[in-house]
Amino acid sequence: MLISELSDRTQVPVATLKYYLREGLLPAGTATSRTRASYDTTHVDRVRLIRALMESGGLSLSRVRQVLETLDGPPVDRHDLLGTAQRAITPPLPERPDDEWTQTATQFVADHGWQVDDDEPLLVLLGEQMRTLASAEPELADEALLARYAGAADALAEVDFSVVPETPADALRRVAVGTVLSDPVILTLRRLAQQGLSARLSGR
Amino acid sequence: MLISELSDRTQVPVATLKYYLREGLLPAGTATSRTRASYDTTHVDRVRLIRALMESGGLSLSRVRQVLETLDGPPVDRHDLLGTAQRAITPPLPERPDDEWTQTATQFVADHGWQVDDDEPLLVLLGEQMRTLASAEPELADEALLARYAGAADALAEVDFSVVPETPADALRRVAVGTVLSDPVILTLRRLAQQGLSARLSGR
Repeated sequence: MLISELSDRTQVPVATLKYYLREGLLPAGTATSRTRASYDTTHVDRVRLIRALMESGGLSLSRVRQVLETLDGPPVDRHDLLGTAQRAITPPLPERPDDEWTQTATQFVADHGWQVDDDEPLLVLLGEQMRTLASAEPELADEALLARYAGAADALAEVDFSVVPETPADALRRVAVGTVLSDPVILTLRRLAQQGLSARLSGR
Repeated sequence: MLISELSDRTQVPVATLKYYLREGLLPAGTATSRTRASYDTTHVDRVRLIRALMESGGLSLSRVRQVLETLDGPPVDRHDLLGTAQRAITPPLPERPDDEWTQTATQFVADHGWQVDDDEPLLVLLGEQMRTLASAEPELADEALLARYAGAADALAEVDFSVVPETPADALRRVAVGTVLSDPVILTLRRLAQQGLSARLSGR
């Protein structure tokens, strides 16, 4: 198909598609003349993946590039695929994180039995979040309490994993886009669960 | 104490305290002369609550006012107190929500056994979030799957309720500030739980 048809099928303007081509996010089509190229369904899928990551997942262009590089590189196992998808949606870390809190978070994660690489960025992020919690609401930064939240997180992850597709591109999209879009749902369900529990306890 | 001492003890500039007084967030002190007033520890507590809600909780001035009005109004039971704290941290709703999705969310919540008022804003929010999920990752908007997330949310709410203080001001602060600050912790734990589960499944 011509680039105009690729545009029609994906609802993405031709100028944007040309931008993706220049940036190397979208592989070149097969040249059919000096100025024309032909595209196929792999291009349609790729454009849809880029849009899902950027629009629904809120990923920046450079984060989308990271995801696509993993997809286009040598095959990796599903565990490494998960790591790539997670890093794409991890917010930038503070420039000078508090090492002691990173250590505290690392120990907490090890105590909970989660096997995670020592240089995992999420450990720095968790440490910073625990630090904020400890300064504003110390009772909530209690490790026994956090361990109970971690138990609930295990239940969330079990649900997440029950619907990860087989093919690498779909799995990357599901983890990156699916996690970003279901995060707010989970937080809203948390509040509704609080109301449900409160109504029950107050005998309504 | 003088306003300067109230400022020292709370680390909030005098100009900001005067602003809180003008806005009615902070009750007037006891007049000791035509231009001076005396403040006590209830003012210190109130200023700290305002700062916790605004700085740690990220609440706007008008949301803080809502919380304080409940606190200063006639006594309400703990269930209504929870509602006030939750409304203070609920993001603005879309102007034209999709009624069908609100209905879907309302039915989902009822099916899960959570007793919630019909005009609860969180039902509109959940409906919109389910709509977004259904358009980008339909498999994740499946109600049986969401019911499993709701089960994990019940576990989160149980933990939340295990540490709600007795006094109304502390309970309001805990629900508003505590929920906002522990939300990101829970989302990070979700990702680490995914890694832990993935490492286990891949036999690492």
